Amino acid sequence: MFISIDGGDGTGKSTQVTLLARWLAEQGRDVVTCRDPGSTRLGEAVREILLGRHDLAIDRTAEMLLYMAARAQMAHEVIRPALAAGKTVLADRYLLANVAYQGYGGGLDVAALWQVGAVATGGLMPELTIVLDVPPEVAASRLRRELDRMELQGDAFHARVREGFLREAAKQPGRIVVVGASGSVDEVHEAVRAALRGRLC
Amino acid sequence: MFISIDGGDGTGKSTQVTLLARWLAEQGRDVVTCRDPGSTRLGEAVREILLGRHDLAIDRTAEMLLYMAARAQMAHEVIRPALAAGKTVLADRYLLANVAYQGYGGGLDVAALWQVGAVATGGLMPELTIVLDVPPEVAASRLRRELDRMELQGDAFHARVREGFLREAAKQPGRIVVVGASGSVDEVHEAVRAALRGRLC
Repeated sequence: MFISIDGGDGTGKSTQVTLLARWLAEQGRDVVTCRDPGSTRLGEAVREILLGRHDLAIDRTAEMLLYMAARAQMAHEVIRPALAAGKTVLADRYLLANVAYQGYGGGLDVAALWQVGAVATGGLMPELTIVLDVPPEVAASRLRRELDRMELQGDAFHARVREGFLREAAKQPGRIVVVGASGSVDEVHEAVRAALRGRLC
Repeated sequence: MFISIDGGDGTGKSTQVTLLARWLAEQGRDVVTCRDPGSTRLGEAVREILLGRHDLAIDRTAEMLLYMAARAQMAHEVIRPALAAGKTVLADRYLLANVAYQGYGGGLDVAALWQVGAVATGGLMPELTIVLDVPPEVAASRLRRELDRMELQGDAFHARVREGFLREAAKQPGRIVVVGASGSVDEVHEAVRAALRGRLC
């Protein structure tokens, strides 16, 4: 089974990925976690360009294609082999993040992003994507570390990104589930597990 | 006007780009040359990943998307501003190279590559692409320096790439012109200029 957890910056994604991976392992599953972009040597090199190097000018379309390239490598090198070996894959972000950030946030054509994404992943999509959602003020209060390129885009951008996640979830209710993530870490973890209930095969 | 010169490795592309740029400048044109991938800081960083780092595993689809990302940045940062300023742009490779190498050579879907390319470039295509063509034995004899990732792909790969260039040229005879490039540098330059005749506005 292939699950992704997504959502805006400051929604607590990474913490919830860690907790969910631990819980899935306790259920006897062989769990592989990965982060998009990243989890391969190529992906980490691309991630460094995208998020680490504040000195580089990156056009929105180029940015989107770099995310797609990192994801293509991760699908090929990490996710497909893990699924083929019967493992459960849990991804910290996936294609939906590109749609929300570069599409809704950055103004690229959303339909084109899904199409490029289908080419990039060879059609490999999570059976379930959990979108963690919090109001902007909660997200801002959680981002206390040094911010990366995407996190620095400003309030209006992040408002459009949030709207994008919610709209896409409304369009694909069977595959994308929104979980309110304003509560405590344990409360959100409970809600994430509840979203999975009946989905685990 | 936007012109690209393309073709397999060892066809003498870079030399012909230099000569053609000089000749166009002598005709009174303000010429901007660029190389794909490259010509921007992002593009050069991506080029280093693609062609410089032999240690990285790169899936064919990820490779294609990295070329697309570098090209998106070049179109945005170099080509569009130059054309808007009335300059003549001469590119050493462009989208057709992806179609030939990753499509025909690497087995990716050719129609999908044109589609992703249209997203990457925002539809910005050369008015004329000159494909330099030589038989494999001539190309091999010209590649005496240390080879990069693409050049190291083997004879069968390069035969498919050549076939790809020729087939795409046959499909778009108005936009892609094949120039035999087995002759001397001066002879090929003459042939390139002949291919341009009646096209310069």
